[in-house]
Parts: sequence; C-alpha cells; structure tokens
Amino acid sequence: MHFEVEKKEFLRGLNLIQSVSGRKTTLPILSHVLMEWENNRLCLTGTDLETAIREELEIRTSETGKASISAKKLYEVVRELPERTIQIEKKENHWIKLQCGKSIFNIAGLDPEEFPALPSYTSDQFNPIPTRMLLDMIEKTIYAAASDETRRYLNGIFWIQKEVGNQKRIQMVASDGHRLSLVEKEGPTVTGMEKGVILPRKGVLELRRMMAEKGGEEKVGVFIDPLYVFFEIGKSLVVIRRVDGEFPEYEQVIPSDNDKKVIVGRESFYGSLRRVSTMTSERLEGVKLFVEKDRMEIFSYNQDFGDAKEDLEANYGGNPFEIGFNPRYLMDALMVMDQDEVMMEIKDDGSPGLLRPVLPDEKSTHISIIMPMKI
Amino acid sequence: MHFEVEKKEFLRGLNLIQSVSGRKTTLPILSHVLMEWENNRLCLTGTDLETAIREELEIRTSETGKASISAKKLYEVVRELPERTIQIEKKENHWIKLQCGKSIFNIAGLDPEEFPALPSYTSDQFNPIPTRMLLDMIEKTIYAAASDETRRYLNGIFWIQKEVGNQKRIQMVASDGHRLSLVEKEGPTVTGMEKGVILPRKGVLELRRMMAEKGGEEKVGVFIDPLYVFFEIGKSLVVIRRVDGEFPEYEQVIPSDNDKKVIVGRESFYGSLRRVSTMTSERLEGVKLFVEKDRMEIFSYNQDFGDAKEDLEANYGGNPFEIGFNPRYLMDALMVMDQDEVMMEIKDDGSPGLLRPVLPDEKSTHISIIMPMKI
Repeated sequence: MHFEVEKKEFLRGLNLIQSVSGRKTTLPILSHVLMEWENNRLCLTGTDLETAIREELEIRTSETGKASISAKKLYEVVRELPERTIQIEKKENHWIKLQCGKSIFNIAGLDPEEFPALPSYTSDQFNPIPTRMLLDMIEKTIYAAASDETRRYLNGIFWIQKEVGNQKRIQMVASDGHRLSLVEKEGPTVTGMEKGVILPRKGVLELRRMMAEKGGEEKVGVFIDPLYVFFEIGKSLVVIRRVDGEFPEYEQVIPSDNDKKVIVGRESFYGSLRRVSTMTSERLEGVKLFVEKDRMEIFSYNQDFGDAKEDLEANYGGNPFEIGFNPRYLMDALMVMDQDEVMMEIKDDGSPGLLRPVLPDEKSTHISIIMPMKI
Repeated sequence: MHFEVEKKEFLRGLNLIQSVSGRKTTLPILSHVLMEWENNRLCLTGTDLETAIREELEIRTSETGKASISAKKLYEVVRELPERTIQIEKKENHWIKLQCGKSIFNIAGLDPEEFPALPSYTSDQFNPIPTRMLLDMIEKTIYAAASDETRRYLNGIFWIQKEVGNQKRIQMVASDGHRLSLVEKEGPTVTGMEKGVILPRKGVLELRRMMAEKGGEEKVGVFIDPLYVFFEIGKSLVVIRRVDGEFPEYEQVIPSDNDKKVIVGRESFYGSLRRVSTMTSERLEGVKLFVEKDRMEIFSYNQDFGDAKEDLEANYGGNPFEIGFNPRYLMDALMVMDQDEVMMEIKDDGSPGLLRPVLPDEKSTHISIIMPMKI
C-alpha cells in the first residue's frame, strides 16, 4: 500500500494541520496526523477534539490505506526534503517508509483506527457564505472575546441569524465583560443559526487562518449541527465544537442614552492613544480623556517613569467632561473600524462608552462598547 | 539646557544601545541611557559594565547638558512619535521634558553623575582593521564559543597576532571543549595583541551587530588596553571588557596524523545532515557516518520516531570506516566554510575529526576540529 506526493504539496497540507495537532498532549494519538489515501486522493486530518482540520491533496495512488504518524515529526522531516516526489509505503506495525531522492526514513506510527473519527456530515448540507464577509465579521469581533477559558461562554464568538423586517441579517458578538463588539450584516440564510451558536475563540482563529491561507475561495460552506459547526473552504474542512452555554443578553447592554457625542479622526485618535499609552502605569494601564469644545486631551501617568499628554482635534459642542479608559480597548476597536472618522458616545464616567463609524450604513452595523476606568 | 533632534536619528541611536542597557538589573542606572549634549552633538551611552556602546548623533544645541533616562522607556516613547523634530529640555530633579508635535512627555531620570564612566582612551591610539575581515573572522569562530558562562575563558574568542616568517598574521580561535574553530589571516598590526586577548562572546555579538548596522564603514579602529578593547566604527564606539584568564593551548590539540581524507560537497553534506538529523535521538543527538570507496552514508536513529539514512557522493579511496558526530557541530562548521568542497580528516572513531576547505589559501587558514561521539 503506497502513494506518491509532491514534497511542496505535502508540506503545505501538513503545515495546515500543525496548529491543532499536539495541542493536547494527554492522548498520544491527538499529536498525530491521520493519512487516508485512495483513488489519487490523500486526506490529512488533525484534531484537538475541539477543532478538527481536514485537508485533501492530489496524489498518485491506485491503492487504499491509512496511517497515523506524529504530525510534528513528519512535518520536520518533510520540511527538510528536496523539492521532489516523495514515496510513502505502509509497513508492519503501523510504521511507514518515506523515500525522497537519496533519503530514506522509517517512521513509527500508531494504529490509525484509534484516531478519533470526524463527526459525520453530507456535502449537500452546506449553506454558502461569502468568505470576505465571514473574515470581516470575525476580524471586527474576535479581539473582544475573552482569552481566559474560565467563562467558556465568553471565550468565543456568538453568531446568530435575525430577521429585520424582511431582511435576513447575520450578527456576530464577542465580549470579555469589559468590552463588547457587535457587527451585523445583511447576509444569506444559514440553516440552524436562528437560535445562535457560540464558537470557541481558538476554533475561530483556526478558521480565520484557514480562510486566509486559502485566499482564492470566494465562498465558505457552513453546516450547523447540534454539537459542531462545519466549514468547507475549497478542499479543506474545519470542524469546530460548539460551546455549550448561553451567551449573555447583550442587546440590553447597548447604551441608548449616551448624549455626549464626540467625532474624532480614527487614525489620529489611534496614534495619540499609542503614544500616550507608553506612559500608563503598569497596574492600571488607563488613560484619561478630557473633552471640551472641539478638542480632546489624552493624559496618562506612570509613577516610575513620568507622564504624557497629547492634544487632538475633535468635533464636539457640549459641556466639558472627562473619562478614563484602558487605551488598549479603544485601540483594538479603532483598529477594525472601517471609516476615517468615528463617533464616541458617552453618558458619564461610570457608564459604558460606545464607539461606532460616523456614517450610517444600511447593510452593515458595527458598534463597540467599552467600560470606563476610574483613574 | 535643551536640544533638538530628528526622531528618526534619535530612534536609530537609542536602538543601538538597547541590547546592552538593562541587561543587568542589579543597578538601576545600568538600565539607563546617558545623554550628553554639547556643540551640536549628542552622545548616547549604554553599558552593562562588560560591554559599553556609545553613539554620537548630530543635533541642534548651543547648550551643554547631561541626563540619564530609562533606555527602554525612552525607546518605547520615541518609537511611537511622528517623524518630526523632538525638543528635549532638562528639568529639575533629573527629569526631562520631551516635546514632539502635539505630544508632551515628562520623563523621570536619575543623576547622570551616577552613570559609570567609560574607560578613557585617545583617538590616536586606534589601529585600523578592515571591517569585512573582522566580520568574516568573527563569523567563522563565534559559533564554536561556549555559551555557558561557567568557564569564562572558553566563553569568548581568543584573538592573537603572530609573525609567520616576515608576515603579520591575525588568528581567532573559539572552542567549547567539544569543538574548536580557528581562522588565521594575513593582517595589519594591532598594538597590544601580541600576547592575545580573550573577548567575551556577548561583547563580540554586540560588536558584530554594530558593524553590520553601520554597513558603510570600511575600517574599524581597534585599541587594546590592559582591561578593555575599544572598537571605533565611524561615530560609534564599542568597549568590551577583556576576559581575565588563559586561553587553553589549542595548537597542540590540532590533529596532524588524521590519515583518512574524505572530500565532500559542502552544501550536499550540509543538506544531508539537516535531513538525517531530524531523526536523531533526543538524548544523544548523534548521527553515524559510514564511509567507503567514493561514498558516505549518514544514519540516525530515534527510539520514539524511527530512523533515517541518506547516501552521499564522496571522494575517498581508503578502507571503510565509521564514526559518530553531533550533526549540529558539523553543520555549524560547514555553514561558515568558504569553498564548495570540504575535506574531512579522520584518524579513528575516538579521536577528533578535522574539517577544512579543500583548496589551500596562502593568505587565509580555516580549520574546524570536532570531537566524535560514541553512538
């Protein structure tokens, strides 16, 4: 039982599954890549039981076989090989023999039947979503997801389909409790998303990486089952286990009576925050904004190193006010907003502030809510 | 007391001294950069007491002053500033005020008089050495220096001037006890180098970095005093404290009766070693070479993952033999050899092997000695 594969193509496939294989070291087989060959096709599968990645490669074989080999070691070996054809042969005791040019490797494996099976699906169950739209929505929300894993329902992105009038809309929301980002776009129907799903942050990061690496695919197929969400990107498949839990009631958190509205240039606000934040204190990491007629001053103070302040033009006509924020949270939100100018909506220094692009867009909404800090 | 400096130029200077400042955290002032301005010149100095770097910048000032500021914090602040002119003003209590565009920073400092003084020198004491020659000799030896600091005399490069016939020659040698690299070149006289100096590895790495960053300088000025070696690279100065100790008698270690001589292509030998070494055992990390008429086989074995072997063409006419090596040591040596073919000279599997470029060069010698491994 053997097959032939081009080194470059094999390396590309092995690279795609590296990040999920071997993340959990409790079960040795999870550090492996499952190789299944048949009919001139090779399927590579890696999984950490939360995210699975399957990649299909074109090879030359008239045989059928399976092997399970350490994903890391196989990648290390293949990476060093010359750009030529690799011959792989299954041997006894789950070993493989790999030959390329004058190099011969005998590599130990495990029984491929022990490799965890992918949850089942059929290809007609997928609903198409434009890749660019999916990437954009992830980009605009994932930074706000909690990265600690204690609150699993916040450690991901909530994704739901809504009907607004007779328009289908897709919403993505993420929050770590200190900030929240919500994006809503006109979009296609995805069966099973009416009640919403929570996708874990790590899985979404893998999905984003796969979409970026397979740059050419216009559409991603999405299929939602009770336990998993399946994404089909060309010949790649990403399967993400859904987070079991209720996403918090976020719509009631969105402030509606923030009457102080300040318009600032997105890039200049970002640049000022970057500069001034070099002087925040290590414990508090806050900056203070002083806003008065057509002007904002940003100030920070560090007891060891000193202080920083910067003036910024702003479009504002109300009473002067001041409020403290973690500059990182403001910068993260500004970084992913589309327009040149953003509107900051504030109620008082103890209530959540809101950031949004200035110009309304009927097909797309994006808001970012950030809790203030006492400084 | 104030001065004006362009952001780009200031950042470049601060960047050059980052790696020595703050390496030792026992004395707070060592994490600082000393700034001294006078007569349209600004000197920036950083030191860890073993290596000091001084950089001279052009600025605008008619005043004279000094300040000592956290090197890291100042770098972080300046990095974020727009590409404009920075004004710096000395304030009370060793603070400075830094202004650039609409940004104002007040930064705490320490008394600049506490900053350790650079050892003294006069500019007429420097002997010129071609930069390219110095860089090349460092490149060919530094990889073999010990990186643990327990044996200080091996934790550096030994540098000595010799007279061979009526030719002045400069030798550099480094060894970590398992391997040794020696390079010798025809070169200029450097006063004070007749008995040899040991320069610590970290200091040499800084020197190499400085020479690389100041790409344009053809010559480096070298001045050797009893405690320090001074290097003048354009407007930069690197001062390295000499290692106090005797470098081992290396000339008697060089084998002269290694009668098995194998010629191999440098790149193909390197490539084979890279591939086969992916399968070395984690504890031993050795590869075995089997040499017979016009052929070399490289073999490695890892008890968890399997084995690898590769055939290589070689020019050899003697009896078959085998010997084990750490492939990393062979690869390090091959990496810095100049010619397309190298000669490996072996006595037996318990005696040091020798690697050298095949073709003799009257003006330059380079040999690498590597202890074998029992595998």
